[in-house]
Amino acid sequence: MTTDNHNKNAGDSILEKPISRRDILRLAGVGGAGLLLGASGVGAIFGAKGTTVSGAAKSSDKADRVEFFGKHQAGITTPAQDFLMFAAFDLTTGSVDEVRKLFKAWTEASAAMAKGDMIGENNENLNLPPSDTGEAAGLHPSRTTITFGVGPTFFDSRFGLSSKRPAALVDLPPFGGDELREEWSGGDIGVQVNANDMQIAFHAIRNLARIARGKAVLRWTQEGFQRTGGADPTGATPRNLMGFKDGTGNPDTKNDALMNDVVWAQSGDGTPWMAGGSYMVVRRIRIRVEVWDRSTLGDQEATFGRHRQSGAPIGSSNEFDPVDLSKKDEKGKPLIPVHSHVALARGDGSIKILRRSYSYSSGMDNRTGQFDAGLLFICYNRDARKQFIPMQQKLGQNDVLNEYIVHNGSAVFACFPGVREGGYIGDTLL
Amino acid sequence: MTTDNHNKNAGDSILEKPISRRDILRLAGVGGAGLLLGASGVGAIFGAKGTTVSGAAKSSDKADRVEFFGKHQAGITTPAQDFLMFAAFDLTTGSVDEVRKLFKAWTEASAAMAKGDMIGENNENLNLPPSDTGEAAGLHPSRTTITFGVGPTFFDSRFGLSSKRPAALVDLPPFGGDELREEWSGGDIGVQVNANDMQIAFHAIRNLARIARGKAVLRWTQEGFQRTGGADPTGATPRNLMGFKDGTGNPDTKNDALMNDVVWAQSGDGTPWMAGGSYMVVRRIRIRVEVWDRSTLGDQEATFGRHRQSGAPIGSSNEFDPVDLSKKDEKGKPLIPVHSHVALARGDGSIKILRRSYSYSSGMDNRTGQFDAGLLFICYNRDARKQFIPMQQKLGQNDVLNEYIVHNGSAVFACFPGVREGGYIGDTLL
Ligand code: HEM
Ligand code: HEM
Repeated sequence: MTTDNHNKNAGDSILEKPISRRDILRLAGVGGAGLLLGASGVGAIFGAKGTTVSGAAKSSDKADRVEFFGKHQAGITTPAQDFLMFAAFDLTTGSVDEVRKLFKAWTEASAAMAKGDMIGENNENLNLPPSDTGEAAGLHPSRTTITFGVGPTFFDSRFGLSSKRPAALVDLPPFGGDELREEWSGGDIGVQVNANDMQIAFHAIRNLARIARGKAVLRWTQEGFQRTGGADPTGATPRNLMGFKDGTGNPDTKNDALMNDVVWAQSGDGTPWMAGGSYMVVRRIRIRVEVWDRSTLGDQEATFGRHRQSGAPIGSSNEFDPVDLSKKDEKGKPLIPVHSHVALARGDGSIKILRRSYSYSSGMDNRTGQFDAGLLFICYNRDARKQFIPMQQKLGQNDVLNEYIVHNGSAVFACFPGVREGGYIGDTLL
Repeated sequence: MTTDNHNKNAGDSILEKPISRRDILRLAGVGGAGLLLGASGVGAIFGAKGTTVSGAAKSSDKADRVEFFGKHQAGITTPAQDFLMFAAFDLTTGSVDEVRKLFKAWTEASAAMAKGDMIGENNENLNLPPSDTGEAAGLHPSRTTITFGVGPTFFDSRFGLSSKRPAALVDLPPFGGDELREEWSGGDIGVQVNANDMQIAFHAIRNLARIARGKAVLRWTQEGFQRTGGADPTGATPRNLMGFKDGTGNPDTKNDALMNDVVWAQSGDGTPWMAGGSYMVVRRIRIRVEVWDRSTLGDQEATFGRHRQSGAPIGSSNEFDPVDLSKKDEKGKPLIPVHSHVALARGDGSIKILRRSYSYSSGMDNRTGQFDAGLLFICYNRDARKQFIPMQQKLGQNDVLNEYIVHNGSAVFACFPGVREGGYIGDTLL
């Protein structure tokens, strides 16, 4: 009963009730009166839509709010936030109708969370489980984005959708050096939550899991981080756990033509319902931190083909200097080694992907006593068959970086096009 | 060779070379010239101690810097930062002398990291492993604190220190409901790193582990978070993953007399080398998130004895209203239930501890498909026999909160008194 109740309320009422998490908190501060007021009471005090009193706070919130609805899903070309909570779900229902209900409820909850609002309206009734778990109450929206996709298994026989599976949503082939583990692989549905606050990112996945009860269960999750904005107000390219700047060579997300070429599936690509969506590849890549830390700076720089401090290509001075693979030293050897990560990943420059990875630290590997830390590599591309796969085939075979890393998780998802207000995630498919 | 070299350099040179991580980055930006300059070259350009050019940046750094040296270790009564990386180490050396060397190297590295400096001087020499792993380069100090303690096993037969074991450093007795796991328990040494940046916190433990090579190994680690300051500029009491404000009832850390009573071991307490130190209890407490989320708001509030939104004691309006356990409802029942967490933890108010806990999210428990999320409970007290233990005995037996939590890790450490500049952690003991 509580489940149905909860989903129903989440579904019915969020878009009409833009009371922010901050409003509710502030109300509660007013002598606890908030506890006694139903939602209508709140409206009665503050006027329609609760905008009167909290206007100032709302507009300051706006600066750190990313719109959930739009042509494309947020969280793909959106400048990367500081934290990640990634989750893969498996559906437990066999009914397309239930999936549709789930996607609708998720859409409304996600739109609320992106705004910094509480989920649902049962947050003051003592006799019900709260419709929002509450740990993000009072926090700014913090640029929350929630990005949804479906994996290859979504198109198996269960839902009669096999004929709609995009040709570009292939099962990834095995790559050199793969040591994939079930516990960090696959999923019917993939959800990437990013925010400038870890607690908000956790809150989002937790509440989506809760809303999914009876329809889907968590398959695997991974937390991730970068340096926080406060620790680096210059906004410089963040460093990964190998100490190198990571993201320098990414294509320019402000260049629409380039994004249409590299990231966004196009209507002519063979899967009309994916037009404006993108294919996400997730790889959980452990870094052999202890081995890396014993290698010389020279070896480290040769591994990437870039300088550690500046991030510049070897032989150049500035991070954004062009990568010129033809430059040679006095002995005629390429300055950027041919099997360095950058040389191989770049190739002739014709294949590009948009990387959006996060560092992770997940305690220790108890069998070895070493850190379980590394990179939750996430990239978006228009067609993995032409972009991620050939790139990773080269890297898996020859990248000198392989001495220091191991891929232990893998998943691919077709991320839906953006949702228009009133629609729901996946509505072009379902 | 590289190990010795590294430790030697870390030991010799940090205090004399206050070049910040930010300076080095800025240097590297100047046409990559930094790459060609040895440490002395840097000094030569910028004048003694590298203060000339970067004065402005340094003073802005100062605001978010917590001094490592002092009467007490930082990280105990220091206002809580946003992130935690906790690590327990086991010593692999059997020599007290090596332990002393380790503690000296850790002291210098920690003092450097608290300032936002790079560790050691081998960060530009291509032929050596860098003495700092580099992922925190360019970041503000971010209020980094690093707090060290030793566990009961430190005083076993290995180092001839059994006679110095504080009587207050007892092995914790079993408590009701304990489901402790080796993988999250114990340790010869405990290190609590806090910072307003997760990457900096990770960097600190990683570099301490690296410096320990050949002397100590990681036993277990745990990452933790709160909401970040940016998500809540009001600085309100943060909420835990049960959605409740956590920390309200903590004793006032600005009250020195109270801290001497509750937190700091005193010279008359029987262990002179611990005077000014404190005993840290760590409990890894998983929250049964899924069960909690199905309980009603009324049950949740009755569990803690406080209101969720305001954090006020049940029946009161404001978070900091006094907790009055004698207040009754019209039927004569206590407003704050007698077996609620707050009623039991508070008791008659005579036993106090200083809590300094962090939420954690560590992926999933693969056996159950549930979140492995909860609270890394950390508290400091002057004598666990009189404070934490009797309190947890009551809670373990009767706390209604037990329906929703399980203690799966446990450790205790005697945290040294503060280190005076020129000294090293544990020098009053060793
Ligand atoms: C732990 C694993 C990895 C680490 C630490 C890592 C790190 C880096 C670093 C430091 C750079 C240079 C700076 C930059 O341009 O961002 C780079 C570039 C790049 N990486 Fe990776 N990477 C990893 C895995 C991968 C994977 C799996 C792929 C794709 C299959 C990939 C694709 C690329 C590409 C396309 C570039 C840009 C090359 C260019 O055009 O200059 N990386 N990576
Ligand atoms: C997951 C485990 C726990 C959770 C979620 C939790 C949560 C809370 C909350 C919400 C409060 C009320 C607000 C506040 O005063 O901070 C509180 C109070 C308190 N808790 Fe816990 N707690 C946990 C475990 C423990 C443990 C293991 C102890 C000590 C053995 C403890 C000792 C206290 C104390 C002393 C108070 C203050 C009581 C007062 O004087 O008002 N807690 N806790």
